[in-house]
Amino acid sequence: MGTEYFAGLDLGGTFLKYALGTADGKILKKGKRPSRADESQADVFSVMFDAIAELQQEASKRKGDLVAIGVGSPGAIDFDKGRLIGSTPNIACWANADIRGKIADKFHLPVWADNDANIMAFAESRQGAAKGCRNVICTTLGTGIGGGIIIDGELYRGTNYAGTEIGHMMIVHDGLPCNCGGRGCFEKYASAPAMVRHYVSLLTESGKKVPKNVSTLTIFQKAAEGQSEANAAIDITLGYLGTGFASLVNIFNPELLVVGGGVADAGDDFIARIHRAIKKRAMKPVLKGFKVVRAILGNDAGFVGGIRLAAEMLHK
Amino acid sequence: MGTEYFAGLDLGGTFLKYALGTADGKILKKGKRPSRADESQADVFSVMFDAIAELQQEASKRKGDLVAIGVGSPGAIDFDKGRLIGSTPNIACWANADIRGKIADKFHLPVWADNDANIMAFAESRQGAAKGCRNVICTTLGTGIGGGIIIDGELYRGTNYAGTEIGHMMIVHDGLPCNCGGRGCFEKYASAPAMVRHYVSLLTESGKKVPKNVSTLTIFQKAAEGQSEANAAIDITLGYLGTGFASLVNIFNPELLVVGGGVADAGDDFIARIHRAIKKRAMKPVLKGFKVVRAILGNDAGFVGGIRLAAEMLHK
Repeated sequence: MGTEYFAGLDLGGTFLKYALGTADGKILKKGKRPSRADESQADVFSVMFDAIAELQQEASKRKGDLVAIGVGSPGAIDFDKGRLIGSTPNIACWANADIRGKIADKFHLPVWADNDANIMAFAESRQGAAKGCRNVICTTLGTGIGGGIIIDGELYRGTNYAGTEIGHMMIVHDGLPCNCGGRGCFEKYASAPAMVRHYVSLLTESGKKVPKNVSTLTIFQKAAEGQSEANAAIDITLGYLGTGFASLVNIFNPELLVVGGGVADAGDDFIARIHRAIKKRAMKPVLKGFKVVRAILGNDAGFVGGIRLAAEMLHK
Repeated sequence: MGTEYFAGLDLGGTFLKYALGTADGKILKKGKRPSRADESQADVFSVMFDAIAELQQEASKRKGDLVAIGVGSPGAIDFDKGRLIGSTPNIACWANADIRGKIADKFHLPVWADNDANIMAFAESRQGAAKGCRNVICTTLGTGIGGGIIIDGELYRGTNYAGTEIGHMMIVHDGLPCNCGGRGCFEKYASAPAMVRHYVSLLTESGKKVPKNVSTLTIFQKAAEGQSEANAAIDITLGYLGTGFASLVNIFNPELLVVGGGVADAGDDFIARIHRAIKKRAMKPVLKGFKVVRAILGNDAGFVGGIRLAAEMLHK
């Protein structure tokens, strides 16, 4: 038997990203295919099968074997069974998808599947910004606020694998209704769409024209140009980020907060401002040694996490 | 060598409660002494020494040996070193107290010390309301909102032993300032003094006389008599309890929430109403199988937890 190789798959609403790697996460080949998420579950699986077959060929070419597969997917995933629990809003056809069952049937290989935010946290913990840390909160700031929590070096998944929904911690009692059924959720006030909402409402109050297609990028650009509404929208969002993350820091006393996702791309200054917003609100003893850093694996986090998870689980 | 007995000590601002028990938490003798917390650290230790000597005698009388000591104390405690980290507001003289060092020097026995909310959670998890559960949030509703979190059957203490400050999760962004340095903390809106504040402000709004020495007991009595302000104060508090606990349930996806402390003594109906307030706000997947129960060890939780902790650590 040749060298052991692992496949990491990262399923998104638009693309399936995938890679072949070694147990220690060295990436040997990566690819990207349309995920066909708007078609049927069988179509999505056929995209996965083609990607795995491609990686298997690559493994052979390198005189090695594909020995296990790790998959990151949106939705709540029963980690023991490797399948979706119910539906996931971004991929309608993906409800109850039996990821492990379907892939294992086809390739006769061990398969593990986990929620994509968990996989991202796992990747950052194994070879990213949180390498070597015991207690970490990993978060993605984007359309929503997702999170994965590492406790004593391991992913915390919750009793029904439905845990660590940090975006749905309620930071404004009886605030704006959220799709989750709650009110005043963290992501309702501190995600990218929330920052845009704060900005639009400040422009409207000032009687200024609201441009089309405002994004957080627009806001950061306008702020850099000195526009007061853009700066105020960022400050307001930072206030909410401070409240939400300081609460998590008071509860978990982690050594590290890793921030990824589109909004984190605003850069290191924004990360430093998040840290200051947390320091202003969190308790002194939990702040000792506490750091805030940017995620470093970016778009690779999904397949890197899948590869590392498959390798760790296989050799457990 | 005879039977192994363990001492559990529960230090409070007024009393030291203590007991002798077996490894499986059977209590053989219990006692209570003024803790002399308003005197010096040496005085508090002398009270502890007297209590331990009394328990040691009891062990001998039973033809056994006191083999280890577990201590619950207010404040953040370095569990590895068995000593306070900094100060604790309720016992001024107790800053940096070297609980393990002082007691071990005197009795030449192994000593473990932990925060009192952790010890309470540990006791409920080993032989109380959370027996046999993997992921549990234990909370005390009283002057503040304290908590201990059990993950995979073990206490989660945080990186600097400063974690699980659930009372300082912020549920009202930029709300009332809290002693902790934050604003809008859970305990500022949902503790016993908060319920009293809601009640007093409702009475004042109605132009009614505010009685002296209002307690949550008064409020529950008045509510039972049908007074609308008392009922409204309870409803408002339940709303905040719903927001705070639903957030924790969304984050941790625990199987159980254990509620103890003075306010929980309002009875099972109040516990059921807390459960409904959580259900109204939490996400569907985390609610599957989730239960809310009353703590059952009451005032014994401190020394029972100390005994169980000492026994588990000794035989680890």
